[in-house]
Amino acid sequence: MSYDNNNPFAKILRGELPCVKVAEDDATLAIMDLMPQADGHVLVIPKEPAAQIFDLSGDAAAAGIRMTQRVAAAVRAALEPDGVFIGQFNGAAAGQTVPHVHFHVIPRWEGAELRMHARDIADAATLEAIAQRIRARFV
Amino acid sequence: MSYDNNNPFAKILRGELPCVKVAEDDATLAIMDLMPQADGHVLVIPKEPAAQIFDLSGDAAAAGIRMTQRVAAAVRAALEPDGVFIGQFNGAAAGQTVPHVHFHVIPRWEGAELRMHARDIADAATLEAIAQRIRARFV
Repeated sequence: MSYDNNNPFAKILRGELPCVKVAEDDATLAIMDLMPQADGHVLVIPKEPAAQIFDLSGDAAAAGIRMTQRVAAAVRAALEPDGVFIGQFNGAAAGQTVPHVHFHVIPRWEGAELRMHARDIADAATLEAIAQRIRARFV
Repeated sequence: MSYDNNNPFAKILRGELPCVKVAEDDATLAIMDLMPQADGHVLVIPKEPAAQIFDLSGDAAAAGIRMTQRVAAAVRAALEPDGVFIGQFNGAAAGQTVPHVHFHVIPRWEGAELRMHARDIADAATLEAIAQRIRARFV
């Protein structure tokens, strides 16, 4: 899959679109999903320009899963969900909506269905409040 | 979450239960899911004894995602799905059924719903035939 330099995550990585940041290191950026499937839904974006996992270097994949681990631990500590789902979707048939490789970290609670992906934009103040709680537990 | 040395994946890693192997390296084992949600559903199991992603070392997580990348590429080359879903579930509320950390690699086809997880055991000959096709494309 060819990489589109103007996809939304490329623009966020270049600072051309805003985001609610959770954490960042040299190789990755973690941000709140603007259309969360559950409260506390975070995206971990490797900075390397790659559309899908197949296009990503091994080092970037390793950096991605390590940041995903740290974010998942922070989400768990901050929100105390019953479980944490980690997903990485390649192709529209697998649920990918932005053509830049990313990991979803989604807290799950017993009996609570996930909301539809990429449908409703969350309230900005709510997103920021949740992000603050997650950042406070990020190590 | 405490680690149970007698969980099914621990037994497979010790050779006490059979599996349909796809690939293996020092840190990981990739096997066919016996109750696949789609044909070509592979599990990547880090050998480190850890129940969930929170308990896994960074090195083992890195090894896990790198094997997952290689398996996903082989599944794509062998079966030519429309997409590839990668999932890593922590806690029953997130879909975890075996208490040893693992990554799901699930090919997706447009219009085909996933089968229920962990319900029906696949025909052994069918699993082996699919595994052979994936192994042939594993690099």
